Amino acid sequence: MADKKMVEAITSMSEDFAQWYTDICKKADLCDYTSVKGCMVFKPAGYAIWELIQKQMDDRFKETGVENVYLPMFIPESLLEKEKDHVEGFAPEVAWVTQGGLAPLQEKMCVRPTSETLFCDFYKNEVRSYRDLPKVYNQWCSVVRWEKETRPFLRSREFLWQEGHTIHATAEEAEERTIQMLNVYADFCEQVLAIPVVKGRKTDKEKFAGAEATYTIEALMHDGKALQSGTSHNFGNGFAKAFDIQYTDKDNTLKYGYQTSWGTTTRLIGAIIMVHGDDSGLKLPPLVAPVQVMIVPIQQKKEGVLDKAYEIRDELKKAGIRVKVDDSDKSPGWKFSECEMRGVPMRIEIGPRDIEEGKAIIVRRDNGEKTECPINGLTDKIKELIPEIQKSMLDAAREHRDAHTYSAKTWEEFNKIFEEKAGFVKAMWCGNRECEDTIKEKLAVTSRCMPFEQEEIADTCVCCGKKAQKMVYWGRAY
Amino acid sequence: MADKKMVEAITSMSEDFAQWYTDICKKADLCDYTSVKGCMVFKPAGYAIWELIQKQMDDRFKETGVENVYLPMFIPESLLEKEKDHVEGFAPEVAWVTQGGLAPLQEKMCVRPTSETLFCDFYKNEVRSYRDLPKVYNQWCSVVRWEKETRPFLRSREFLWQEGHTIHATAEEAEERTIQMLNVYADFCEQVLAIPVVKGRKTDKEKFAGAEATYTIEALMHDGKALQSGTSHNFGNGFAKAFDIQYTDKDNTLKYGYQTSWGTTTRLIGAIIMVHGDDSGLKLPPLVAPVQVMIVPIQQKKEGVLDKAYEIRDELKKAGIRVKVDDSDKSPGWKFSECEMRGVPMRIEIGPRDIEEGKAIIVRRDNGEKTECPINGLTDKIKELIPEIQKSMLDAAREHRDAHTYSAKTWEEFNKIFEEKAGFVKAMWCGNRECEDTIKEKLAVTSRCMPFEQEEIADTCVCCGKKAQKMVYWGRAY
Repeated sequence: MADKKMVEAITSMSEDFAQWYTDICKKADLCDYTSVKGCMVFKPAGYAIWELIQKQMDDRFKETGVENVYLPMFIPESLLEKEKDHVEGFAPEVAWVTQGGLAPLQEKMCVRPTSETLFCDFYKNEVRSYRDLPKVYNQWCSVVRWEKETRPFLRSREFLWQEGHTIHATAEEAEERTIQMLNVYADFCEQVLAIPVVKGRKTDKEKFAGAEATYTIEALMHDGKALQSGTSHNFGNGFAKAFDIQYTDKDNTLKYGYQTSWGTTTRLIGAIIMVHGDDSGLKLPPLVAPVQVMIVPIQQKKEGVLDKAYEIRDELKKAGIRVKVDDSDKSPGWKFSECEMRGVPMRIEIGPRDIEEGKAIIVRRDNGEKTECPINGLTDKIKELIPEIQKSMLDAAREHRDAHTYSAKTWEEFNKIFEEKAGFVKAMWCGNRECEDTIKEKLAVTSRCMPFEQEEIADTCVCCGKKAQKMVYWGRAY
Repeated sequence: MADKKMVEAITSMSEDFAQWYTDICKKADLCDYTSVKGCMVFKPAGYAIWELIQKQMDDRFKETGVENVYLPMFIPESLLEKEKDHVEGFAPEVAWVTQGGLAPLQEKMCVRPTSETLFCDFYKNEVRSYRDLPKVYNQWCSVVRWEKETRPFLRSREFLWQEGHTIHATAEEAEERTIQMLNVYADFCEQVLAIPVVKGRKTDKEKFAGAEATYTIEALMHDGKALQSGTSHNFGNGFAKAFDIQYTDKDNTLKYGYQTSWGTTTRLIGAIIMVHGDDSGLKLPPLVAPVQVMIVPIQQKKEGVLDKAYEIRDELKKAGIRVKVDDSDKSPGWKFSECEMRGVPMRIEIGPRDIEEGKAIIVRRDNGEKTECPINGLTDKIKELIPEIQKSMLDAAREHRDAHTYSAKTWEEFNKIFEEKAGFVKAMWCGNRECEDTIKEKLAVTSRCMPFEQEEIADTCVCCGKKAQKMVYWGRAY
C-alpha cells in the first residue's frame, strides 16, 4: 500500500510549496502526525538525520570546550518567575503540570520551554569563586512550547534541540562566547548542511526574552521565506542579578557572573528540506544522509549480480561510507524513484553487463549526473564525491539565496519588491521600534537581522526617511 | 572551597553504605540535587558516563537491526487507559499536564512514564501488511514517575533511559526478540560495565504492568543488595488487541501483531558505583570512563616536565585513548586522590628523573598496581591495560557476587541467611503467589528472578513445603 504511493508524484513546489513540504515529510518517511495534538513522531529516516546533526555538532561544541549535562525537565513556577522579561516571554506558551501521582502539586511546574532559569538555579550553587569560572555547559533534550499552529519540524509543541548555557567572569568573555557559538552554528550550516546563512544581530523587538543581545543565523528557503536557524544570546549579568549568582573574584570582592545561551533545533531538518529539495523529493547533503549510497542491482535475479552488489557494499562500508543495497523485489525504476524521494545523495547501478565489463554507474542526486566508474575504483570515487556534492549543494543554495536577495533605498522600492518577489530585502533602518512596527504591519515582513557585514545602501531609513543607523535584512519568515 | 572537601575522606562503605554512596555521587562530581523536588542534575562527569553507555549500547542495538525514533513525551489520558493492567500499574505514579498556555486542556495528558501506549497508537497506523513487519524501534529519552523516595541515579522522578518497542508477525518472533535484547543487556553489562548479571524471568507478581512475561538481569551490589539492571518484556498480542493493531498476512487474513519492549536506565550508573567503588571513591571500567588516563606531572614547574606530559597526552589521544593532563597548581598527592575519587582507571606519573631515564609510572585504579614503563611504550601498554582492567574488574565483581550467593533448602536456613548475611539466596518455590507474599512479608525480600540456569536445590518449596516448581533468586533490592 505504501509502495504505490511512493512513486506517485508529489505536489510540485511551484504549485503549492506548503503542500510540497508536507508531501516530502510524509513520502520520504521522515515523520508523522500523532494523536497527541501538535506533537509529531520522528520516524527512523527523520531521526537518523537528527542523530547525524547531533553527532557532528556535538563534536564541534566539544572542540571549543563545551561539556554536556542534563537538568530536569520541570521548572517550578517560582523559578520561572524570577527574571521579569523572561517569564513574560514564556509563561503564555508553557504546559503546566499540576498533579503528581494521585495528589495535586503544592506548586505547579511547567515543562521547560527553555532552561535559563534552571541553569541559573544550578549555577547559583556551583559558582563560588573565580576558579569555578567559566562553566560552558550544554544539553540535548526536548522542550515544550504550546504553539497554536504547528508544522512538521518547523513548529511543534514538543521539539528536540540543544541548549548551551554558559557563565563567565567578565562581560567581554560572555560576548566572545556568544559570537563564538554563532560562528560554530554558521560553519556547521555551511559545511555540514550545505546551507549558507546570514549572520547578524536581532533588533530589540526580535530578541530573546531576557537577553541583552541576540545574534542569529538566517537562511533563505526555496520559496523565498527566511528561516531563523540558530540563535546565540548574551544576557550580560541580568539573570545573575535576578538569581543572585555571585562569585569571589581574585581581588576578593563579590561580582556577578555574565551569561550566555545558544540553541539550534530539529527545525534544521526543515531547513534541509526547504533549501535543497525538489519536485522529485528530498536532497540530503552526504554528511547528514543516513544512507549516502544506495546500490541498485539491475536484473538482480541473474547469477552473481546480488553477490557483486553485496561485495561492493562491504567494500564501501569498510571505508566508513553509509551504504545499503536495495535488494527488494521492486523494479529498478521504482527503486530509483525511491532513492530520489528519500534524498539518497548517490546511487550505484550495477547489472550483469556492467559486471562483465568491470564497471558500474554512479548517479548523483544533487544534479542527476551519471558517471561510469570501474568497480575497483568505486570507493575512491565515492569518497571524492562526498565533499564535491557538499560543495556543489552549498554553491547552488548560495546562488539561489543571492539571486533572491534584493536591496531597496526607498519605501516604494521596498514595497514593490515584497509585492512582486519573495526573498531577503536589504534596507536601511533608523533604529526606531515604530518603523519596525510599521513595516511589519504594512508589508507583513519582519526584520531578520542587522547583518555583521553592513553595507551603506542609503543614508536614510526606508520607512521614515530619517537618518539611517543600520542596514537590516527583512523578509517573511517561518 | 570544593578543593578542600575533595581530599577529606568520604564515609567508609562498611560504616554507612548509603552515605558512602551519596558521598561518592557528590565528591566524584557526578550529580547534584536541584530545587525541583525528586529530580537531579547530571553534572559533566556523570553525564559523560551516560554518553559512553549510550554510544556503546546503541551500537549493539543497531547491530541487531534496531532503528531509533522519537515519540511525543505526552500521553493523553484516554490513550493511557486503553490497556487495563498497564494503566493500573502506571496511573498512580504519573505527572499530569492539565494546562497548555493560558487555557486548561480539554483532556489531561501525563508525561510518559513509559511509551507502550504511544508506540501502539503509532504502530496502529504504520502496520498494515505482513510486509510492514517487524518494526524494531527504540528511543533514548527521559521519563517521569512520581516516586516518593528518591536517590541519585537509582530512583528519581525524572530519569534518562532507552526504551525499545517492537512488533512482529508471530509470537515466536516476539519471544525471540525479547530474549535477544536481554542477552544484549547482559553482554553489555559484563563486557562494558564489568558487572556480572543473573539472567532470568520475573514471577507474575514482579512482572511489568501489561506484560505476558518479563525477563530481567539482576546484579549484586557491594552491600549485598540486588539491583534490577535491565528488563525485557514480551506482551504477546495483548496490547495489539487493546489497540486493535492488525495486519493482513500472506494468507490474506487479518492477524494481531505481537509486541515486546525493553529498557535500561541511568540507574546503570548507580550499579557501576555500587559494584566497583571503594573507600577511596569511584572505580570506572575503562570502557565507560570519560577520562581513561590522567597524566600527573611531578615537579611540573621544572623545565620540560609539562611539555613531556603534553607530548604523551597527544600520543595517547592519537591512539584513541581518552586522556588528560592535570596541570593544575595542586600537589601531586592531591591530584592522586582526586583521580581515585573520580574513578580514573589509570594514571601516569612523570617527573624530571623519569624523563631523564625515559620512563614513567602507570598506576591502576582497580588494584593499585604500579608499573614502570618506557615512555615510548606507553601507548601500547595502556591499550593492553584497558581490556586487562575490564577483565579483572569483572572477575572481582563476579567473585564478590559468587561469595555472596547462598542457597537454602529449608525455611530455617532461608530465614537464618537473611538474618545474618546480605546477598542472593537461591531457594525453591512452588509457584504460588501466596508463598511469594509470605516471604516478602516475613523476610522483607523479593523474588529477583527465576534464573534461566536452574538448579535443583531441593524438591520442595522453601516456604510451604509443597512440590517445588522453580529455583528462584531472592534478595533485598534497590
